[in-house]
Parts: sequence; C-alpha cells; structure tokens
Amino acid sequence: MYNQKTYELGTNRSVIRELAEYGKQRAAIVGPENVFDFSIGNPSIPAPARINDTIREILLDTDSLAIHSYTSATGNLDTRQAIADDLNDRFGTSITPQELTIGCGTSQELVAVFTALSVENSEILTIAPYFPEYQVYVEHAGSKFKVVPADIPGFQINLEALESMLNPNTVAVIINSPNNPSGAVYSAQTLEHLACILTRKAAEYGHPIYIVADEPYRELVYGKPAPFIPTIYRDTIVCYSYSKSLSLPGERIGYIYIPRQATDSEALAAAISGGTRLTGHICAPSLLQQVIARCATLRPDMTAYAQNRKALSEGLRAAGYEMAEPDGAFYLFVKAPGGDAMAFCEKAMAKDVLVVPGDIFGCPGYLRVCYCVSYDTILKALPIFRELNK
Amino acid sequence: MYNQKTYELGTNRSVIRELAEYGKQRAAIVGPENVFDFSIGNPSIPAPARINDTIREILLDTDSLAIHSYTSATGNLDTRQAIADDLNDRFGTSITPQELTIGCGTSQELVAVFTALSVENSEILTIAPYFPEYQVYVEHAGSKFKVVPADIPGFQINLEALESMLNPNTVAVIINSPNNPSGAVYSAQTLEHLACILTRKAAEYGHPIYIVADEPYRELVYGKPAPFIPTIYRDTIVCYSYSKSLSLPGERIGYIYIPRQATDSEALAAAISGGTRLTGHICAPSLLQQVIARCATLRPDMTAYAQNRKALSEGLRAAGYEMAEPDGAFYLFVKAPGGDAMAFCEKAMAKDVLVVPGDIFGCPGYLRVCYCVSYDTILKALPIFRELNK
Repeated sequence: MYNQKTYELGTNRSVIRELAEYGKQRAAIVGPENVFDFSIGNPSIPAPARINDTIREILLDTDSLAIHSYTSATGNLDTRQAIADDLNDRFGTSITPQELTIGCGTSQELVAVFTALSVENSEILTIAPYFPEYQVYVEHAGSKFKVVPADIPGFQINLEALESMLNPNTVAVIINSPNNPSGAVYSAQTLEHLACILTRKAAEYGHPIYIVADEPYRELVYGKPAPFIPTIYRDTIVCYSYSKSLSLPGERIGYIYIPRQATDSEALAAAISGGTRLTGHICAPSLLQQVIARCATLRPDMTAYAQNRKALSEGLRAAGYEMAEPDGAFYLFVKAPGGDAMAFCEKAMAKDVLVVPGDIFGCPGYLRVCYCVSYDTILKALPIFRELNK
Repeated sequence: MYNQKTYELGTNRSVIRELAEYGKQRAAIVGPENVFDFSIGNPSIPAPARINDTIREILLDTDSLAIHSYTSATGNLDTRQAIADDLNDRFGTSITPQELTIGCGTSQELVAVFTALSVENSEILTIAPYFPEYQVYVEHAGSKFKVVPADIPGFQINLEALESMLNPNTVAVIINSPNNPSGAVYSAQTLEHLACILTRKAAEYGHPIYIVADEPYRELVYGKPAPFIPTIYRDTIVCYSYSKSLSLPGERIGYIYIPRQATDSEALAAAISGGTRLTGHICAPSLLQQVIARCATLRPDMTAYAQNRKALSEGLRAAGYEMAEPDGAFYLFVKAPGGDAMAFCEKAMAKDVLVVPGDIFGCPGYLRVCYCVSYDTILKALPIFRELNK
C-alpha cells in the first residue's frame, strides 16, 4: 500500500553508492590508506577561505532575523544581482536579476525544469555518457527519456545521431558540459552545429526545442573556458550549482537562468516557477544566498585538480590506457582494457582500486575515474593500474 | 509548449502573497509604521543566539571540507542521533537515528511522503482549516484530496464527518497541530478518538491509514505541550521543520520520522526515500545539519509571542470579536464580523490592516490574524479593529 515506483527508487541503490559502501568496509579492514577510491565525484579541495570568512562577516553585520528569514521563492534580489553582474562581466551578456531564480542545486532545478517542459507525448534527449539520475527526473516529469549514443572517442556530440532522433515531440536536449563522466568540454563549434540543427528543427516543428544546460562543472576547466551556451543558442535554460565550483555540495545552492530572449520566456519562467513549487521548494538556504551575494565572483583554485589530472592521465597513458581528452570537471573517462568495464571494475576492486563502469552512464566499455582524491592516492594507485593493464 | 498545470501554479499568486505585495506598496506610500500587516506567518523573533554562536563554533572547530560536503541523503548520523535523543527525553520514546531522515522543511518532506503513499485511486484527507498548499502537493503526488469540514467553533476535529469520508481508498490523513490557521492544538482526547477510528477502519480495509503529522509549530504552545502523535497512533509519519520553532524559515531544515513500529515501516521508509529523490533532494543543507546536531535541545523563547497573543486576543475579544482558543502557533482565527470574510478583509485593507480570509484555508467566515508582528503593531492596530467591528 505504497507507491511501487518510489519504493524501487528507494531500494535500488546506485552502483556508485554500493562502491562507496564497499570502500568504507574495506578501509575498516585494510586501513583507509590502502583503499584507492576513485568512485566518488565529491570535491576534494575545501571551499575558498573567503566563504567561511563571509559567513563570519554576515553573522557580524546582518540582523539575525534577516539572515535566517524566508526569501522570495526566486531568491534574494542582492544574490541575483551579484550573479547577473558576474555573468555579464565574464560573458559580455546583459542578464538581469529577473532572469535568475536561486535554486537548491541542479538536481532540484532540473526536476522543476523538466516538469515545466513536459507535455503530452513530450520527449527529452540527452547525450551519452550522461548522469543517470536524468532518466529518473525526466520520466517522473512525464516525458520520454532518449539517449543520443556517445561520440567515441572524442566525446563531443554525435550530431547526426542526435538529428535523426529529433521529432515534433522533442521539447528539450540536456547538455552537460564539462561532462560527467567523460570530462569532455563541448567545443563552441560542436555547440554551434547543435544550435543550427535545433533552430532548423524548431522552425520545422513550430515550437522551440530548449537546451537544458546542466552546469555544475562550468568553471572546472583546464584550458579555455567552457562556452556559455545561452550566447550560442537563445532557447537555453541554465541549471547551475555551486557544489563543485565553490566546493559547497552539501549546502544546496545554485540558480536557474531563463533568458528573456528565450521563446515564450515569461510563460516559461512561470511554468518553471510552478515546477519548483511541486518539488516543495520554498527558497534556497538563506544564509548561503547571502554568502553568494558577496562571493559571486569567486573562482575555484584549480591547482590541486590540475596536478591530479596531469599525474593520473600521464600515468595511465604511460601504462597503456586510452581516454577522452580530460578538459574539464574532475573525471577521466578511460577505455576499459579488454573492453568489459564491469569485469575490469571487479578486477580492480579485488586490488582495492574503486572505479565506476561507464555502463551506468550509458557508455559501456569505459571507466569513470574521479581524480578529486589526494595526490598521494594517485601516486600509490598508479602501479596497481599498471598491473591491471598487463 | 510547456506544462499548463505548472504554468498555472506559477502564475496564480496566492492571496497571502498578493496581500504582502499590497502591504509593501502601501508602506512605500504611507510609511511602514502605518501599515498593520497581520497576513504573514513569518517568525518575528530572531533565532536563539546560540544558533549563530554555534555556526561560529563550527567554523572554528570543524574542517571546512567536512562542513560543506555532501551528507548521506538521510542526513548526518550525529544530527539524527541528537534529534532522537531530544525526542526520547521529551516523549519517553525510544527513537533511533535510523528512523529519522533530515529533510529540507515540511513542504519538501510532505511532497516526498505523499508521493510515496500515492497508489491507484488513493485518497488523502485533511481537516479544515488547512494549509492550502496541501492540495497542490497531494494532487501532484497522484492522490485525490479531500477536506473534512471544520469543527466549529472549537476547531478540534469533526470526527463523525471524518469517519464518514473514509473508504478503502483512503491511505492517509494529514494532521497539522498546532494548527495553521486556527491556532488550535488537537487534544490528546481528540487524537485518541481519531486513532481509534483509523485503527478500526484500517483493520476493516486490510491496509494501514497513515497519519501524516505536519508539525512545524509543535513547540509553539502556550499551555501544555502538543501531544506527540506517534505515541498515540502507531502508523504516524512526522514531517518536522525548524522554521518556526528556531526561527530558521529561510534555512530549510527539518526531518521526517518514520517509526519502526509503523506498518511495513521498512518498505515505507524506502518508498519515502524514493519520494525524496523525485523532488531532487540530495541532502539537507550541511552546515545547518551540523548546527542542529548541537542545538537539538534548544527551545523557542515564547515570551514575545505570548505577550502578543494576550494583547491581541484580549483586545479583539473586548472589541466584540469571537475566536478559536489560541493554544498554539502564532495565529488567531477570528470570526469575521458580518460573516463575510472576504468583504471584511477588503474593508480592513482600506484602513491598512491586512488579515487573511479563512476561505483560502477551506473555512469561510473566519479571518487569520498572525501575531508574529511587533507588540507596537498590535497596540496601534487594536483601535482600528474596534472601529471595523462597529
């Protein structure tokens, strides 16, 4: 006498959580220094010191009632203004606070957006490899979930396949760049081609096809910045989170950007506002909203991730592994030796090295290796990786 | 080309928000000291000083990475243990941390619970007067929403009406005590009768009928404590929030308590966990979780609310108004002079006194008057209330 679907969602533990649990158990037996857990995408560098300094400042200079009170559902105006100013500085845009809603991280933001975009028979596409929770959210919202096969080995977008999957029921395409799990950053060229296709097809179907840009990794890049998709394609809705960029994953703070130039933007914003209401959203955590108002220009210190990325990608390549160009996020997407990722992961697990099979991201034959770990973990694990590829 | 239902939810502003907006506009014209806004249920006393002191302590004594990291979806074990200990001390229970999930306030918690309880043809009841968002959440979850008519003038539960509305499709009854908007606290006797009826009917139907206890006001009482419903009825699911009790409404922190003695409690907990996932829940804000771990025994300082309640209820009664016994929360539920609450609210608005018509809570003919305002506001508004009842 309860909802069977939610029961299954609550019972089927994810492969990643199972791995983490196994890692903890092994750590208790062999010692944490002998377990090499590359399975979890948790930031391994702390938030910039200015975050905690800002919390202290706010406690000193702001009335306690104002710190902890409800904000409007769309968030504090100060916070929205600070984010708009920062985006405008970086991307030459002219975003206003009214186009921004402060949200509780991309998961809840995506649920609201997918719900708002879902109509009878609607379909939402994503590109493999992809974050598996998209499927849960899209199907709960009432749309059909479709996956464009991966573009191997470059891990850009297989545009031909994508175009062939569009039809009059397509309402949105989810784009996640820098990508979890591939670490790839979609190039301006890729995104411009995508924009061309979507613009043409939208005109043909007589309704917009929105890009839903899931962007928790936007600032985590090792070369040039990731293109800001709304400047390439007008019908883009951005779901952003400070979880990775400012190492605040537990605090649940981000924003939704609905550009006023998007088709039907006012109605769209209303529908998304209704969508947030259905998730039980009241407002994003108020103290953290005030922190972001003062810290919107902060950037992550990428030194540790860059060092890890270099050591791990060079070490794995020297050991004969092949992988996608790791331009962003904190993941390497590595071809599984022998071609069977599940088998490789089991073999690695037996040596206390934990990596995630690409199968769960819709891309079998690959391994996701998170390098948000200590440098020492990488140095100690490389010989085991070498052995695993003999 | 977007979801019509969410569009409407995003467009139809609530009466309460319209009133608040009007209040702001009037304040700009006549000065904030001349607008008497009794429309909003926002705590008017700040969080206990220990809350901000605890934040400072945590920033000093806890590693920054640990402060802001993801917690498990069910929340920090420390936080759950502290809450369990506090409940056990107060109610003589033996709750374990495993029966608690840290949530983001009752709205999101209720969405998850209603989703988990919704099956084909299921019905969820609530008791008038009730918080109107229940209807949005229940219907989105997929259940039919039914309202038991108010028990006037005592504002306990009309148990006869309730019993007549139960049927084999009833999966849950929402109980909100202390009640928004009536301020009534359901007595142990009322709840015991309710428990009897539900137990008998559940046996007859061969499945549990859960009480979903929405408890943001539990500690806001002026006489004896509100009964803890799980000690009266085993199939109770509690949704709690620190929004009102610790004046932290913006911070989005609370918990769901699923007693292990509840029918099918393990499966139920799994279904609710799946329900939280569908709201995009990842974890409750991590810094605040750590605050609650250290502050679970804190209680609100009721001095200001008690003073307001006394002045306003006595003043209104002296001016000829009738009202429910205001035992809890920070609301008076007052019979509208003349019987037409909408008309009275308009008349009051013209004198810059803002109160909410009971109609939106499923109880026409009454007015909700929030006394979470300054004492001065009450003193200055009483003569206007007197005039409005001439």
